[in-house]
Amino acid sequence: MKHCSDCGEKTIHTIPEGEDRLRHVCSACNTVHYQNPNVVVGTLLTKGSQVLLCRRAIEPRYGYWTLPAGFLENGESMMEGARRETYEEAGANPTSLSLYHLFSVPHISQVHAFYHSEYHGDVSAGIESLEVRWFDVETLPWNDLAFPTVFQCLKRWQENPTDLSVKEDTLERTTRS
Amino acid sequence: MKHCSDCGEKTIHTIPEGEDRLRHVCSACNTVHYQNPNVVVGTLLTKGSQVLLCRRAIEPRYGYWTLPAGFLENGESMMEGARRETYEEAGANPTSLSLYHLFSVPHISQVHAFYHSEYHGDVSAGIESLEVRWFDVETLPWNDLAFPTVFQCLKRWQENPTDLSVKEDTLERTTRS
Repeated sequence: MKHCSDCGEKTIHTIPEGEDRLRHVCSACNTVHYQNPNVVVGTLLTKGSQVLLCRRAIEPRYGYWTLPAGFLENGESMMEGARRETYEEAGANPTSLSLYHLFSVPHISQVHAFYHSEYHGDVSAGIESLEVRWFDVETLPWNDLAFPTVFQCLKRWQENPTDLSVKEDTLERTTRS
Repeated sequence: MKHCSDCGEKTIHTIPEGEDRLRHVCSACNTVHYQNPNVVVGTLLTKGSQVLLCRRAIEPRYGYWTLPAGFLENGESMMEGARRETYEEAGANPTSLSLYHLFSVPHISQVHAFYHSEYHGDVSAGIESLEVRWFDVETLPWNDLAFPTVFQCLKRWQENPTDLSVKEDTLERTTRS
């Protein structure tokens, strides 16, 4: 952040009085501009021993496989956001979702929440997907997954597909992410 | 948002090409500025049949009782954030936290995550708290609670203190919030 979003003047990076960390503060109107983590919401759709993946048509990780997911928007619940992203990217409309795995990803200042649903309806690639495909648990494209949280979700489901309880984790930086 | 945080020129509120909702877009450099929900993290600390509350020394809801909580910061996990806020506001340093309740609060574009810990250590009011106090479950200050998600967490714990499984909810607008 270089300029104040309120008045347009230049900001400085400083610790405001009474705080303990660096913030972007306007040099003219003194407004403190807080920057906080973003929330990503998505789904793990399963059909028996299969799981639905999308091949990304956008950067980052163009061409790699992912679970349908994207940024939570203002004004929507996490579940609504997960459902919206799933429809936009995979043309799927699961009726019942339940929270499956919540990840903190602090090195990129994100929180990722994945919802599970058993789903037997239609799917189709949205404009952000090159293709969507049901993968059998035995033939998941482990070397071509887009993101570490996607890998973790799929690994958990592969190892214990009947455990649908909510889990929470923090994902530290890996060599790839 | 009135000005571009990259170049300082005026923004316009418009739907960018290829998107489906209003964004703040710079009239000069065309940068799209996304605004997304914030995450609030806090704790439900219990000591037998008692729960720890803080009386707020800051707005909003000055003077009302709350669970220790605040905005998740960039670079920290949700659990780290919950622990930091608990130390800052209540001087408490619980060693083990486990996710208890996750709320979407879409009408204010927030996500609230509360962690539980049974805690028998020291407590003391931080600068954002007028006082901290252990309340017995029978004498909770129901009419003087700061926020609806605090009310929901306490109600759940009062009704079933042995159920520490992770729950997820969406909190719709109420007359008070």
